[in-house]
Amino acid sequence: MTLKPNRQADASEQSLLRIFTVPEDTNSTLSIIEQKLSEDLAGFLGNSIAALEKPLSEIETDFKSFKIPAAPRFVSDYTDEIMQNLVAHSVHTSAPSFIGHMTSALPYFVLPLSKMMVGLNQNLVKIETSKAFTPLERQVLGMMHNLIYDQNDTFYNEWMHSANHSLGAFCSGGTIANITALWIARNQLLKAQGEFKGIAREGMLKALRHYGYDDLAILVSERGHYSLGKAADLLSIGRDNIISVPTDGNNKVDVDAMRKIAQQLERQNIKVMAIVGVAGTTETGNVDPLSQLAELASEINCHFHVDAAWGGASLLSNKYRHLLAGIERADSVTIDAHKQMYVPMGAGMVLFKDPELANNIAHHAEYILRVGSKDLGSQTLEGSRPGMAMLVHACLQIIGQEGYEILINNSLEKARHFATLIKQHSEFELVTEPELCLLTYRYVPSGVQEAIEKAIAANDLEKVNHINALLDGLTQFIQKHQREQGKSFVSRTRIRPLKYYRQTTTVFRVVLANPLTTHTILMSVLEEQVEIAKLDSEFYPQLHAIGLESAAL
Amino acid sequence: MTLKPNRQADASEQSLLRIFTVPEDTNSTLSIIEQKLSEDLAGFLGNSIAALEKPLSEIETDFKSFKIPAAPRFVSDYTDEIMQNLVAHSVHTSAPSFIGHMTSALPYFVLPLSKMMVGLNQNLVKIETSKAFTPLERQVLGMMHNLIYDQNDTFYNEWMHSANHSLGAFCSGGTIANITALWIARNQLLKAQGEFKGIAREGMLKALRHYGYDDLAILVSERGHYSLGKAADLLSIGRDNIISVPTDGNNKVDVDAMRKIAQQLERQNIKVMAIVGVAGTTETGNVDPLSQLAELASEINCHFHVDAAWGGASLLSNKYRHLLAGIERADSVTIDAHKQMYVPMGAGMVLFKDPELANNIAHHAEYILRVGSKDLGSQTLEGSRPGMAMLVHACLQIIGQEGYEILINNSLEKARHFATLIKQHSEFELVTEPELCLLTYRYVPSGVQEAIEKAIAANDLEKVNHINALLDGLTQFIQKHQREQGKSFVSRTRIRPLKYYRQTTTVFRVVLANPLTTHTILMSVLEEQVEIAKLDSEFYPQLHAIGLESAAL
Repeated sequence: MTLKPNRQADASEQSLLRIFTVPEDTNSTLSIIEQKLSEDLAGFLGNSIAALEKPLSEIETDFKSFKIPAAPRFVSDYTDEIMQNLVAHSVHTSAPSFIGHMTSALPYFVLPLSKMMVGLNQNLVKIETSKAFTPLERQVLGMMHNLIYDQNDTFYNEWMHSANHSLGAFCSGGTIANITALWIARNQLLKAQGEFKGIAREGMLKALRHYGYDDLAILVSERGHYSLGKAADLLSIGRDNIISVPTDGNNKVDVDAMRKIAQQLERQNIKVMAIVGVAGTTETGNVDPLSQLAELASEINCHFHVDAAWGGASLLSNKYRHLLAGIERADSVTIDAHKQMYVPMGAGMVLFKDPELANNIAHHAEYILRVGSKDLGSQTLEGSRPGMAMLVHACLQIIGQEGYEILINNSLEKARHFATLIKQHSEFELVTEPELCLLTYRYVPSGVQEAIEKAIAANDLEKVNHINALLDGLTQFIQKHQREQGKSFVSRTRIRPLKYYRQTTTVFRVVLANPLTTHTILMSVLEEQVEIAKLDSEFYPQLHAIGLESAAL
Repeated sequence: MTLKPNRQADASEQSLLRIFTVPEDTNSTLSIIEQKLSEDLAGFLGNSIAALEKPLSEIETDFKSFKIPAAPRFVSDYTDEIMQNLVAHSVHTSAPSFIGHMTSALPYFVLPLSKMMVGLNQNLVKIETSKAFTPLERQVLGMMHNLIYDQNDTFYNEWMHSANHSLGAFCSGGTIANITALWIARNQLLKAQGEFKGIAREGMLKALRHYGYDDLAILVSERGHYSLGKAADLLSIGRDNIISVPTDGNNKVDVDAMRKIAQQLERQNIKVMAIVGVAGTTETGNVDPLSQLAELASEINCHFHVDAAWGGASLLSNKYRHLLAGIERADSVTIDAHKQMYVPMGAGMVLFKDPELANNIAHHAEYILRVGSKDLGSQTLEGSRPGMAMLVHACLQIIGQEGYEILINNSLEKARHFATLIKQHSEFELVTEPELCLLTYRYVPSGVQEAIEKAIAANDLEKVNHINALLDGLTQFIQKHQREQGKSFVSRTRIRPLKYYRQTTTVFRVVLANPLTTHTILMSVLEEQVEIAKLDSEFYPQLHAIGLESAAL
């Protein structure tokens, strides 16, 4: 693509002003690229992103210069360059055969709407720079609140647009959402009382002294997201005070174990600040027993937060929302719209059951975010931020609940179908069943499967571990090669299955959220893996070395 | 605009899949709108955003429903609706006559590039979902680091792409940037030592106990941004421990006063954790004496952070970067690219002088953000986040340092020109001189100016206050009416000028960052204000009531 650029690249004032005023030349490199994006996004991505992976160290050589270039450049030259250096070596997150990410294909309309959002360049921190975007964001939060908590008309009419209340906070993603929830929980617990002005004003030391606690703790399943540790660090609670609670065979937190830990902490005068339930673990997609956790939180009188960053979208399915039963008892819930709601990156939310809750972190300045203003910035962690809520609004309206019902049911059912394919295939082992639309599995030649079952029956722990160690290498080999070939992609994680004595085991991880992923594609992902397995020159000799040559047949 | 929509709106699977696959109809409502955006952004915004302001309560009635709509909708219907409900009532942040915001007109090329960024839908948290976007972001941070700290080739070759180092962190905006800097400063101060595992792991209580401090404090000018209070709350330092230091007549922090406060805190066994210098205060645009602050920070051995969220872009001007002298001695610096660097909302950065510094908040998980990986997420507050760095990269390359030189010099010089216009105009008073491109002023009829000068000469504090109170009302009246008329916009703030005995005074606030704002527009802003002043039916009778009828003539 070599088109004549329509922008002068000299550093004259006149030439610079033109980039702020002159419309795009419809025959320029960038315009033509944009047209392709509009006409056929999938085609554009398929053609522009290189299939074969380039090593990161080579990519880095194109981004080595550390000096801001002196002279201005032609837009077309720059565009050509990033098509080669950046776009070609980005990740095809929306490919139907790339089933290892939590991202999906996007509905076509979010692209022009994003462009409009950027052009409007609103700042949601305050009404003065967002105007109608503020009520829109409040409406999106109201709708998501309603999806979780299902309160009545009076409730929403009273609180959704109330200046001193908020039904949730919009943010860039689940990490900020989780931090916001725990920040609120901490400030609520250690609030002003008598002479004490609250932790927000006086800090942790005086707060603990005032309330007479020796420390705080947060209880969560060992499968909790790493952002919780980040929150504990940031909020001065300390990472060691995130207490990791064991899970059962289905990767769901053991509530009895959690109760015992809570009792023990109480005896040590350590206050449990919050219990976090996971609704869709990152590695295996399982949902904690939320009702039981709500019960426990109520018993020990602490905040109950649910991290449904990934799984929360399943609430949009009337057929499957029962899988998240109990979420309506949470004090706060994290949901990322950029995961299973088909919104582009950068759309996180935390919802609050009680519209007063966020006042624990309310902050006002004398001139903006005034008391009584409807500025959203007074109850969010972020300050300036873009109008991403518009894209969630668009998806909710255009796809509708009935549309999401179909998309989500299809995802969950596709995962069940894939699980069946894996179980029926003699060379694969399903490691975790899909509860939502995420499952894990691995490639295990049938002979090896027999050998491992036999070793388990004989309770030969050493042999099981030995075989699994070899399989870990094989899984890693297959996943890496498949990624590098660029035809399809599954991710890889390490979990500790009950069946394998809780030993760390490497598995393929698949998320089936892309509506364009077909059953045929799923089958071909497995077929490709069978072929790649044959290329591993180390696995079979190693198998031989531990006296399992017959298993390889 | 009534075009036939090309999307079926029924909730069938086939119809839903089409929104993920079928290209935009080039003759649909949304396509036509997008075309207008491309052909003439300013025209689109000018035509689509309603000139007259609609009260927020009326806007809210369009965003009242709290139920996610059941049935899917036509994209065209939705588009029509938001053009009326949302776009028409958003804020025209890029209008050349809207000189009250920190936003500006955008270069045309950021729109198609944003669309590409959304289409690529990368997630910068980890290489696996960002690939070339990660080295690109590291390069942008390297360039900004170089702009501030000007280290040599060896430095950048060694650290810019180093897995276990970072020259800065990209984030959604200045608030997250400031929080990140103070989080790092806190963890650096209260790091692991001997048996103590560091505040990140053990929390604040044990940290203070270990180091033997009774409390922590942060010193900043009384003009510091409200996000610092938010940081102190979040980090468990407590808002009351942000110590507000008085400023001089030019709104610059009084370093001697700060030194005395620091000494006093030391005597109380309260450790000063950080000094924050402001490079461009939100209200008056002034820059603290950064070199002197660096000196003090070194004396008392604490972290020195500079909040240059707004003012930092001035470093791109070789002519004026001396105004920020001393910034190169800061341990960390906040700069927002979405303020004066002409990048759309959502592009904040914090830069670290020492590439090891961010390791104070480094966090790793077993399966992503592994030790030694180049995943950016291991040293950022946010988790998942979009590839906004690409837009900063594009602006730096296409505008270039020489381009920014012109744009920034023009902004600063336009502000000086406007200051001259105000001073020459008999009915206006310049309240604060522009140091960068921000100034404050107010409308004061010449007779009233004389009266106020006379009262000052006579040291008649009461009279000065009385007149100023009336002028506050007038300023508010003018600002509000001007905004509602929709032709032009200045913002309003309250400051405490030395001249008026430090009494709170309401002023117009103007930021001259938009390259399209002409001298003619500036003159017409003043003329419009003169006309609006005549409409205030309360000011002159009140003036009369305090015996100043002659001043009104």
